Amino acid sequence: MIKVVILGGGNVAIQLARAFKNSKKVKLIQQYYRSKPDTFFLENNIATTQNITNLKNADLYIIAISDDAISEFSKKIIQQNKLVVHTSGSVALLDLKCNANKGVFYPLQTISKQKKVKFKNIPICIETEKDSDYKLLEKVAKSISKYIYAINSEQRKNLHVAAVFVNNFVNHLYKIGNDICDSHNVDFEILKPLIEETAKKIRSLPPKNAQTGPAKRNDKKTIAKHLKLLTKKQQKMYTLLTDSILND
Amino acid sequence: MIKVVILGGGNVAIQLARAFKNSKKVKLIQQYYRSKPDTFFLENNIATTQNITNLKNADLYIIAISDDAISEFSKKIIQQNKLVVHTSGSVALLDLKCNANKGVFYPLQTISKQKKVKFKNIPICIETEKDSDYKLLEKVAKSISKYIYAINSEQRKNLHVAAVFVNNFVNHLYKIGNDICDSHNVDFEILKPLIEETAKKIRSLPPKNAQTGPAKRNDKKTIAKHLKLLTKKQQKMYTLLTDSILND
Repeated sequence: MIKVVILGGGNVAIQLARAFKNSKKVKLIQQYYRSKPDTFFLENNIATTQNITNLKNADLYIIAISDDAISEFSKKIIQQNKLVVHTSGSVALLDLKCNANKGVFYPLQTISKQKKVKFKNIPICIETEKDSDYKLLEKVAKSISKYIYAINSEQRKNLHVAAVFVNNFVNHLYKIGNDICDSHNVDFEILKPLIEETAKKIRSLPPKNAQTGPAKRNDKKTIAKHLKLLTKKQQKMYTLLTDSILND
Repeated sequence: MIKVVILGGGNVAIQLARAFKNSKKVKLIQQYYRSKPDTFFLENNIATTQNITNLKNADLYIIAISDDAISEFSKKIIQQNKLVVHTSGSVALLDLKCNANKGVFYPLQTISKQKKVKFKNIPICIETEKDSDYKLLEKVAKSISKYIYAINSEQRKNLHVAAVFVNNFVNHLYKIGNDICDSHNVDFEILKPLIEETAKKIRSLPPKNAQTGPAKRNDKKTIAKHLKLLTKKQQKMYTLLTDSILND
């Protein structure tokens, strides 16, 4: 069994702990927490500590804390010749400032604490400073997910921006669609099948080929009609997106 | 059996014809075509005509042609006291210029000719000029879909703009995400589970509450880092969307 210590108690930490619990190759032996240990660890009799110098002897230390804090926090880790990884999309491998062997274990998904996550389908992007550590990290990743990708720090930070577009920004467009429905007493529910079909469509078709709509057809009449229906703020968004499609 | 004539041979016409074929309440008795009849009608022994004065006697005439052409085309229909509907999201009921009873039968989905569509899950938005026609149109809609909504012309045109945001514009953001991946040799496949999860998340959570990411957190450090990675055009898009989330 690969022995793992998790450092942190946020969404990713808890979801990872849950996933490892069902893994046959990984044994979670300890959680380091700052303010209070999560009930998950107590309920499952996993050791917890608030003392960073008290970490157990493990094969892998996973730092799952907020992006901004990773670099400073990593300095406190005194384990040497051990593999220490963080789970962030936007932090480089070399931002880890401990003397250990460094790596990244980045599950690319929108993860919340409440909703149970099926890790099996979440892509995990991994990177290690030393080639010899790659196999270990890959084994850990494979024990909880079907999709493992070798992604270096340069690729990962770009992947993270891409994720902002297809997740955060897309959700904001859903929000605008919802606003428009609300202002005209239309049930937003009507749009949900379309939203899911739009996401599914690119399984088999590159987004470039899946593009439809008035902007794609350069249908100026419909575009003008649409603009008249929108608020100033919505118009600005509509125009920029329409121009971007037109000039693509 | 409700007798239906379809006028047109585009994506919506063909998919509707397919759906009616499996309906027990609707009998498709004729297609009117402009250039050539679609093989579907020939293969299923459904009468076809190119002569608009030769339309059969039916309960419902469905005009499924491009939005721009509907109004002019409708003038040619000489059937009186019959229900004539179009299938467009962006055209008003009163844009139909025939002397018949008017209505709208708008399936809200991204429909292509090749991909077979499960109409059962596609919301159909219906509207009739005369209340007495509503029941008939509802019966036809219910025979192919589970989700029927009464939507008037004012609501429908706003719904159509909302659909542009959550479908056409969202797909364009997928395209930008794909571009970013391509420029850094990252497999776009990695983002697909995130894309599907983002779409599924709003089944249970309003988009406003589902919003996450650097803009939502007002995480200026990450936003600045992201902007540096993007092209000028992508920066403009990133900034507008980020500001829109910040000011929401």
